[in-house]
Amino acid sequence: MPAFEDLKIFTGNSHPTLAKDVCAYLGIGLGECSVFKFSNDNTFVQFGENIRERDVFLVQSIAAPVNENLMELLIMIDAAKRASAGRITAVMPYYAYGRSDKKDQPRVPITARLVANLITVAGADRLLTVEFHAGQIQGFFNIPVDELTAVPILARNFLERGLSNVVVVAPDVGRAKRARDTGQTLGVPIAIVEKQRIGNEDRSEAVSLIGEVEGKTALIVDDEISTGGTVIAAANELKEHGAGDIYCYVTHPLLSGSASETLQKSVIKGFVATDTLSVSDEKKNSKTHFISVASLLGEAIHRIHSGLSVGAMFEQ
Amino acid sequence: MPAFEDLKIFTGNSHPTLAKDVCAYLGIGLGECSVFKFSNDNTFVQFGENIRERDVFLVQSIAAPVNENLMELLIMIDAAKRASAGRITAVMPYYAYGRSDKKDQPRVPITARLVANLITVAGADRLLTVEFHAGQIQGFFNIPVDELTAVPILARNFLERGLSNVVVVAPDVGRAKRARDTGQTLGVPIAIVEKQRIGNEDRSEAVSLIGEVEGKTALIVDDEISTGGTVIAAANELKEHGAGDIYCYVTHPLLSGSASETLQKSVIKGFVATDTLSVSDEKKNSKTHFISVASLLGEAIHRIHSGLSVGAMFEQ
Amino acid sequence: MPAFEDLKIFTGNSHPTLAKDVCAYLGIGLGECSVFKFSNDNTFVQFGENIRERDVFLVQSIAAPVNENLMELLIMIDAAKRASAGRITAVMPYYAYGRSDKKDQPRVPITARLVANLITVAGADRLLTVEFHAGQIQGFFNIPVDELTAVPILARNFLERGLSNVVVVAPDVGRAKRARDTGQTLGVPIAIVEKQRIGNEDRSEAVSLIGEVEGKTALIVDDEISTGGTVIAAANELKEHGAGDIYCYVTHPLLSGSASETLQKSVIKGFVATDTLSVSDEKKNSKTHFISVASLLGEAIHRIHSGLSVGAMFEQ
Amino acid sequence: MPAFEDLKIFTGNSHPTLAKDVCAYLGIGLGECSVFKFSNDNTFVQFGENIRERDVFLVQSIAAPVNENLMELLIMIDAAKRASAGRITAVMPYYAYGRSDKKDQPRVPITARLVANLITVAGADRLLTVEFHAGQIQGFFNIPVDELTAVPILARNFLERGLSNVVVVAPDVGRAKRARDTGQTLGVPIAIVEKQRIGNEDRSEAVSLIGEVEGKTALIVDDEISTGGTVIAAANELKEHGAGDIYCYVTHPLLSGSASETLQKSVIKGFVATDTLSVSDEKKNSKTHFISVASLLGEAIHRIHSGLSVGAMFEQ
Amino acid sequence: MPAFEDLKIFTGNSHPTLAKDVCAYLGIGLGECSVFKFSNDNTFVQFGENIRERDVFLVQSIAAPVNENLMELLIMIDAAKRASAGRITAVMPYYAYGRSDKKDQPRVPITARLVANLITVAGADRLLTVEFHAGQIQGFFNIPVDELTAVPILARNFLERGLSNVVVVAPDVGRAKRARDTGQTLGVPIAIVEKQRIGNEDRSEAVSLIGEVEGKTALIVDDEISTGGTVIAAANELKEHGAGDIYCYVTHPLLSGSASETLQKSVIKGFVATDTLSVSDEKKNSKTHFISVASLLGEAIHRIHSGLSVGAMFEQ
Amino acid sequence: MPAFEDLKIFTGNSHPTLAKDVCAYLGIGLGECSVFKFSNDNTFVQFGENIRERDVFLVQSIAAPVNENLMELLIMIDAAKRASAGRITAVMPYYAYGRSDKKDQPRVPITARLVANLITVAGADRLLTVEFHAGQIQGFFNIPVDELTAVPILARNFLERGLSNVVVVAPDVGRAKRARDTGQTLGVPIAIVEKQRIGNEDRSEAVSLIGEVEGKTALIVDDEISTGGTVIAAANELKEHGAGDIYCYVTHPLLSGSASETLQKSVIKGFVATDTLSVSDEKKNSKTHFISVASLLGEAIHRIHSGLSVGAMFEQ
Repeated sequence: MPAFEDLKIFTGNSHPTLAKDVCAYLGIGLGECSVFKFSNDNTFVQFGENIRERDVFLVQSIAAPVNENLMELLIMIDAAKRASAGRITAVMPYYAYGRSDKKDQPRVPITARLVANLITVAGADRLLTVEFHAGQIQGFFNIPVDELTAVPILARNFLERGLSNVVVVAPDVGRAKRARDTGQTLGVPIAIVEKQRIGNEDRSEAVSLIGEVEGKTALIVDDEISTGGTVIAAANELKEHGAGDIYCYVTHPLLSGSASETLQKSVIKGFVATDTLSVSDEKKNSKTHFISVASLLGEAIHRIHSGLSVGAMFEQ
Repeated sequence: MPAFEDLKIFTGNSHPTLAKDVCAYLGIGLGECSVFKFSNDNTFVQFGENIRERDVFLVQSIAAPVNENLMELLIMIDAAKRASAGRITAVMPYYAYGRSDKKDQPRVPITARLVANLITVAGADRLLTVEFHAGQIQGFFNIPVDELTAVPILARNFLERGLSNVVVVAPDVGRAKRARDTGQTLGVPIAIVEKQRIGNEDRSEAVSLIGEVEGKTALIVDDEISTGGTVIAAANELKEHGAGDIYCYVTHPLLSGSASETLQKSVIKGFVATDTLSVSDEKKNSKTHFISVASLLGEAIHRIHSGLSVGAMFEQ
Repeated sequence: MPAFEDLKIFTGNSHPTLAKDVCAYLGIGLGECSVFKFSNDNTFVQFGENIRERDVFLVQSIAAPVNENLMELLIMIDAAKRASAGRITAVMPYYAYGRSDKKDQPRVPITARLVANLITVAGADRLLTVEFHAGQIQGFFNIPVDELTAVPILARNFLERGLSNVVVVAPDVGRAKRARDTGQTLGVPIAIVEKQRIGNEDRSEAVSLIGEVEGKTALIVDDEISTGGTVIAAANELKEHGAGDIYCYVTHPLLSGSASETLQKSVIKGFVATDTLSVSDEKKNSKTHFISVASLLGEAIHRIHSGLSVGAMFEQ
Repeated sequence: MPAFEDLKIFTGNSHPTLAKDVCAYLGIGLGECSVFKFSNDNTFVQFGENIRERDVFLVQSIAAPVNENLMELLIMIDAAKRASAGRITAVMPYYAYGRSDKKDQPRVPITARLVANLITVAGADRLLTVEFHAGQIQGFFNIPVDELTAVPILARNFLERGLSNVVVVAPDVGRAKRARDTGQTLGVPIAIVEKQRIGNEDRSEAVSLIGEVEGKTALIVDDEISTGGTVIAAANELKEHGAGDIYCYVTHPLLSGSASETLQKSVIKGFVATDTLSVSDEKKNSKTHFISVASLLGEAIHRIHSGLSVGAMFEQ
Repeated sequence: MPAFEDLKIFTGNSHPTLAKDVCAYLGIGLGECSVFKFSNDNTFVQFGENIRERDVFLVQSIAAPVNENLMELLIMIDAAKRASAGRITAVMPYYAYGRSDKKDQPRVPITARLVANLITVAGADRLLTVEFHAGQIQGFFNIPVDELTAVPILARNFLERGLSNVVVVAPDVGRAKRARDTGQTLGVPIAIVEKQRIGNEDRSEAVSLIGEVEGKTALIVDDEISTGGTVIAAANELKEHGAGDIYCYVTHPLLSGSASETLQKSVIKGFVATDTLSVSDEKKNSKTHFISVASLLGEAIHRIHSGLSVGAMFEQ
Repeated sequence: MPAFEDLKIFTGNSHPTLAKDVCAYLGIGLGECSVFKFSNDNTFVQFGENIRERDVFLVQSIAAPVNENLMELLIMIDAAKRASAGRITAVMPYYAYGRSDKKDQPRVPITARLVANLITVAGADRLLTVEFHAGQIQGFFNIPVDELTAVPILARNFLERGLSNVVVVAPDVGRAKRARDTGQTLGVPIAIVEKQRIGNEDRSEAVSLIGEVEGKTALIVDDEISTGGTVIAAANELKEHGAGDIYCYVTHPLLSGSASETLQKSVIKGFVATDTLSVSDEKKNSKTHFISVASLLGEAIHRIHSGLSVGAMFEQ
């Protein structure tokens, strides 16, 4: 097994706080690495310490500005490869382009696969991530992938609230499976909010609901939240059907545009997410709560480095 | 654009009837190709005619015996490549291993990706298929993929029956999206059958139902049917909730074991599927009905060969 | 030889004007292609017309925002590949990251090679560009590359001015070869501006000049201009050594920050560049002059498409 | 050098007995790995223990059912790769498709090379095998291959019989080289049985013999035996030419169909083979004798794992 | 089918005569291509005419100086690829390193596979050759290979001599198969010369003979001849066993060192070979006779270019 | 970190003296490896000792005969890979074909990139070299490259001579950057010799000089010297402009043809080079002086093997 002292963690500019927290969990310092732009807008990277034969982990979350952060990561990988790193693990707490995972219209890309190819050709040996948009994205890679789940972390937070008479709600049919899995974890029923066209009237869309929610505490679950539109539409529908308190649990808080304010003003009582993405202080408010994945990632990095089972982290 | 006379279609042993029907649609003869086994159980392939620079389509459905049929296809591709075929398209009306599309347990394979790699390394230039188990499997390939849908064919059959007061039912949460898409095509609501554990009792599983079905004609939809267990459990649940006539529409009729008899004896009134898989006569009975995808595949092959849009086949 | 009607040109958002001018030269319309961002900052691409087996050229100049423009191009290539394009040529009038073409410090990337790998893995079959920062970047590719030179276009502009007693000046030793080549084209001598440390004094840098410039019309030549700092320092040094009128000719007008104003205020009499990069109107002033490469690119695309020699464009 | 405790051996369903014997030689337990089929005939694999960074050996002999066993191996390799195995060695005591090693007719595959590509693309780092049908199959691989020979094991058995006046016989010209090598090992002359067409008569085939066999103990040698037809025809020819006792030594006992009974009834006095293939008890009879390669494979695995020379196993 | 006018043939320095003869057969001129060395011993290549999208055939026989000729070919391929050739076929009438086709000793290369990799990575799309040392070398390639046989050409020469009472002789056990094939073509028996150690005496080697040759006209056949040692030792052995006239037929006349004189002085009455290798005039003498493969190669090139069957050239 | 005892160094025939000196620096013996030619001019390689999992360094300078030496290296790499070497580093003190690093004419190769591809496909894991002709050649590789510089070694020799009033001279504009770098190291000015066409007269070439040299000690610097023509023309030009003593410092002494005698007879007072290339005794004379890079290479090998920084060797 490789010795622990060889482990090195570096970060780009997308989420240095999380990288530092991961290092703190592991009791090591964050490696020195400059990542900046020249006046010609070209990104530049230089590792500030010897990484030959080291076990290198590059922490970079691919949030907005998405393309900037992705290119930073690719250039870091290239630099690490040419600096003779022993093994390079791309640590992407949030993997962008997950929704471009299939051709559901003619002549569109499958960008999630393209990104997998880019990471691989740049020289990464492995990937560590938290919850892809679809599990199948694992198969976009030929290199080993460790996909961690934040569901136990989020569930623990929910259980601590001691709520009762709960229903887990999928805000969209595409998310039904996640609701089912969470429902099974918590031992509660599920419901699904659905956008449907009834009859043949020309594309008039109506939000409807499948399942029972009246008088229940509703837990809307999703993997990520962007503008918040889908979640809030679902919450409103739940209220119309007589739901009680409504909470929203997601893993990846993209919170683009004014999503945070919209949540604050909405019927949702509490919004809980992890910190796989960097959330600025102005996006935090009385309803939002963020739980760190630093120990999750730190433990996984320790296990990857030491040849211990990562799957064992999620066994009960 | 390449000339039509260069198109050549060959088939292995998995589903020659469909290959012949495709040729009939195109008005060309099926190419000569021997695919058989030596006494040492080694599969052997020989093309019986010159295929240099030809536009070669190899029709092989990967049904049981799955591994035999897959290896036949791979060996055909290798032989075509070494015989200097101009372009090789693997035509797989049914793509096996689609359910092994992610690591949802530790230390399992992603065989659907492995199969994509095998087909590519053997030498295929493109893939033509009908409905993957998950659309993301497109992204397992770097070569161009044309994935056809049989939903319009199946929907047409349904519409011809002139039924009313219909609900589309997903037999499982994982199939909810397909039910929603079909529901939208037909302009009817959906319901979902769900296996749930209520409370924390030790893994006692209960089938339940989300949505309204009472007095309605139920249309259970799925991409494939194997033993039929899931579909029949769903049908029974629907009956308990007062559903009227129950039909089942699937694309790929695997019908393994005694699935066909089980369907015959079940509460399901009619079972409709395509012929992407070869179904023996003894598996056909008074309730089953099969609709050919030969014209669908034939038209797609014509369009691929002639540089015409395949997407245009599905525009209204 | 492939027929002309199959040629299709598309553009991303970096420099649509040039793409349109190229189409105008060729007498064809620009292809329909949407390239935009979702609310989650993910770039999306969709080709609006059938491109199966077409000879597809994707025009995208990789100027600021560099990483955005590069990712747009990569995603366009992926979409074109999956849409079964017959051949994909990445047309990059300006290729970014050219200055990251070697490891001249420890643990830095060779991003120009990384970009070559990204373009290739995305699925491009060929590259068409105008003047790399170093000719060796051609060798970063395994796919065929056509590198056009703008020197004849720029030289023609110079000759039309009818100046005499000219010296071509390299603003830096690293650019001496380009100055020599231009000097030979025009039949005039060269000089070189050089930053030197004289003696062993601690890193005191002095700009000096090698060669004769007194009373001569000086022509500073370079491949690109970013902030303009190097060029203006060179011009000042030339003035100190008694040079007459000073002109500056570059191929790629990056003109980052306030470069344009700085040029306007400087001792430089005229600044001439091509339009390989999009220059906003506010960056144009009385001293600047831009010459289009549209006919150069258009002619090269025509020749690539028709199997004619591209090298022949530059023979006298 | 890697530590011994990291070595892990797993087996599919083709020949578990041999895998267990190899483990016994090494004094370690066989690793836990489920390899079975779902009702849809899809093969499934799951490793039952952590194999991160372990030195993994997958023992699978590719005998009938050939394609099943091969796919099992490929899926095991994929699962091991995705489970982050440190190094994966495919241990194939018998490598199928060895006779499809060249195009000796138009438009046939080279399946032995295809198999090499499949094993490599699945993710194997090395191959360990016993006697390819042709040594050149080593060159079908780019990964390192260790090919062991069973000739010394078989020769030792022969020498223990204490026979005299021996001639080694190739049952076919294509096997002459093996006969020569064995002849040299034993210090005895050789003869060759040859199917020839004499004169121009229409393809009338006659078995003939080159070399002297009268009154001698004949040792027919071959790499593998399938139906036994060739070997028995050779034995009959030898009897006609006055040979004494006839023995047959082969490495790989395919014994397809009724080969075993045919041997029992033939003029051959004794049939000796190794256990690179699993032979069912009903195929064993009074004339057959099987010698295990477990120690041969075990020793090679030990040496590969420990960085010791494998070639040294065969030096005298 | 591609038009004939697009076909272009070029040659390096190894065997220009053959390349010209091939062009003469096809009625086209040899393409202009400079291949020479700079003073620093670096080989340089430049194509003297536009080859964009052309069907390019590069004729280069890999005889002594082997490494020079091979590198010339690789550099020509690279230049053709970068010049946008439509398709590149390496035409190697003689493929060197064929005898390094397996690891028959520890820690040796498989150079024949290495050469296949080099040709492929340089950019060749296909290979055309005459008789590999072993047919399995086809499988060293993933690109399509056309391997022509010179046996019919050589057999025709033999038949024209009208000899009778003939035996075909393999000069070595390893060549027995070729002798058998030739014997079957001519309808005559075979014999094999064999180097054997009789008894356990310390490595005393004795040449012996298997089969009947007394009073017969012997035809020694081989794929290539280098120093001629093996062939002449075989001829002497044949004479000792009372053979009549002895002829020698080989495909590839390497004739290294003084092989030609040695043949002239030997008991061999006639030596016949093709011109796959360039043989200088001083190596020709009264016993040697060379038959051109120009029409064989020319016909194959025509067929490859036009999409016609190459296999059909060898059907009777 | 890997243990030191695992390091193994082998050499081909191009420069065994240097390989031995490197071993002497490291205090280890040169590994046993036979590299020779068969009578058919095929190069053969066999390692004489076990190299499984060893850290293997193959020292081979690619001087004349360039293609022979390159093929030797490629075959050694193939043999090492197939012998299961743990890691293979190609040590090329001189990398040939560096001047073929771009397409500066139509239809020429980029052989320096081709060589990079050949080395990689053969199986090298890393490259160690001394001063490429252009730094960009690093980017021709995807594997890690360590490029050492001999400038400090050469500068040290110069400083020991205690000369004063020095000017560093580039013998050609293309070498101006190296002169500038050396000038900065020594704290002295630079001059450039330039071949120019003045006016429009028909290609009459005149050597001219940019910068001040009168009365100064001139130091012509270059990366390599072949026939010496450029350097001697530069020296003559310097003399005409009144330069004092002239020295010439280059890294790679190709010294092809009669270069050595020409230097001896020239106005150059002293010629200093390293021993990256083997120089025969008859090429050494009273003016030439060679400084060994053995310790430079040895130290780099030690650092690569032990995971220490190589960049640190060049920090002050």
